[in-house]
Amino acid sequence: MTYCVGMRLKEGLIFVSDSRTNAGIDHIATFRKLHRLGVPGERLLVIQSSGNLATSQVVVTKLFHSIQADIGKHLNNVPTIFDAAGLVGQYLRDTMKASASIVAGSEDSEFSCSFLIGGQIKGQPPELYNIYPQGNFIAATMDTPYFQIGESKYGKPILDRALSYDSPLDKALRCALISFDSTIRSNLSVGTPLDLLVYKADSFDFPEGRRLYETDPYFSMIRQQWSESMRASLYALPPPPDDYWR
Amino acid sequence: MTYCVGMRLKEGLIFVSDSRTNAGIDHIATFRKLHRLGVPGERLLVIQSSGNLATSQVVVTKLFHSIQADIGKHLNNVPTIFDAAGLVGQYLRDTMKASASIVAGSEDSEFSCSFLIGGQIKGQPPELYNIYPQGNFIAATMDTPYFQIGESKYGKPILDRALSYDSPLDKALRCALISFDSTIRSNLSVGTPLDLLVYKADSFDFPEGRRLYETDPYFSMIRQQWSESMRASLYALPPPPDDYWR
Repeated sequence: MTYCVGMRLKEGLIFVSDSRTNAGIDHIATFRKLHRLGVPGERLLVIQSSGNLATSQVVVTKLFHSIQADIGKHLNNVPTIFDAAGLVGQYLRDTMKASASIVAGSEDSEFSCSFLIGGQIKGQPPELYNIYPQGNFIAATMDTPYFQIGESKYGKPILDRALSYDSPLDKALRCALISFDSTIRSNLSVGTPLDLLVYKADSFDFPEGRRLYETDPYFSMIRQQWSESMRASLYALPPPPDDYWR
Repeated sequence: MTYCVGMRLKEGLIFVSDSRTNAGIDHIATFRKLHRLGVPGERLLVIQSSGNLATSQVVVTKLFHSIQADIGKHLNNVPTIFDAAGLVGQYLRDTMKASASIVAGSEDSEFSCSFLIGGQIKGQPPELYNIYPQGNFIAATMDTPYFQIGESKYGKPILDRALSYDSPLDKALRCALISFDSTIRSNLSVGTPLDLLVYKADSFDFPEGRRLYETDPYFSMIRQQWSESMRASLYALPPPPDDYWR
């Protein structure tokens, strides 16, 4: 499985992905699921993937190849992030069609995957899209400023409670990391290292992002502090009234 | 969907169930999923169900009918909770077989459901069992003192972090209610009213349990306080180091 979160906030964009893949619980490996591309100073694009690794790797590799070949439409020359999302969707559909013709009669969903793509192109606002396994997609808005793909349920409550479009980047990043902590604790198929990338709106930085290992001092510290806070908060709640007991 | 939690702790048993059922999002209804039976002073049994309502209602109704008929083995005369779990599993298998013969070729899983059954019989310790859709079952232990059925992922992180076999009942009940709050906030298919029942080990009480509506003052208060604590705890975490930002 996989867990990826993308956020489009007032101050910028945040992307966090885990790196665990598994085909059965005795076949676990580490693969990067967060990819940065673009043109420094001009456009930044970040792609995150979940689902069948063979499919997502083909899509991402072909997207990179098409940039290198520089023929026709590719992610470094499409005019908008909306078009970039459309291009990823098209590559995904093409890849799915090809695998369907190879493995006739197989369930489509076995090979399917989802993507998030976000970034900023000079002269335009930052954007974030969620690309469904069918290749169609939706944009993040002020009402719904984040998307999750993969194993999303364990980490959703903290996002629903604490994140809004106006959350400052440093607070939103803490929220994302705690969302990952909740997921990692409750589900073996999501694991460190995490890849994270924070982009400040209109900065046209080209950040490399950072890889957080299990032993990362900050991540370890907030994971422990969070657990202690949760327990303390729980026990700080007033005890249930007596008539709940009968 | 549904969410039910059963806990078997040192001090006793806790059962909490939601009551929302849905067949499509425009076909939502309230059905009780927590059922108490037994013989006051001698045995208490609590059954919780999730999954296909037609199947679970048939199983529960037949279990009650067999007690009324008082012929052969039923839940009020089986010698152990282990045997009670076996009986529920057998009724489930029989019901599934009957529906499979009616709707040939249908996916078994469409009609499947899961149960928790827990309680105490005089002279024996309290027990809790999780009955799978196949009718087989497992017992809660000191290592794994709780079971969830239905929409379990949203509410799992708080249980994993804050609950242990030694948790006092009043703290464990707060933990269960917060687990429901997280689930209700993030998933429309789980909703109030909640049915809860707390049983103190070796008391041989026969508690009626309690129904908590959306407007319940205690539940509303802890839901709000919990949200505030989560946000405060999140923002009390130290901010991420500068080198996380590039």
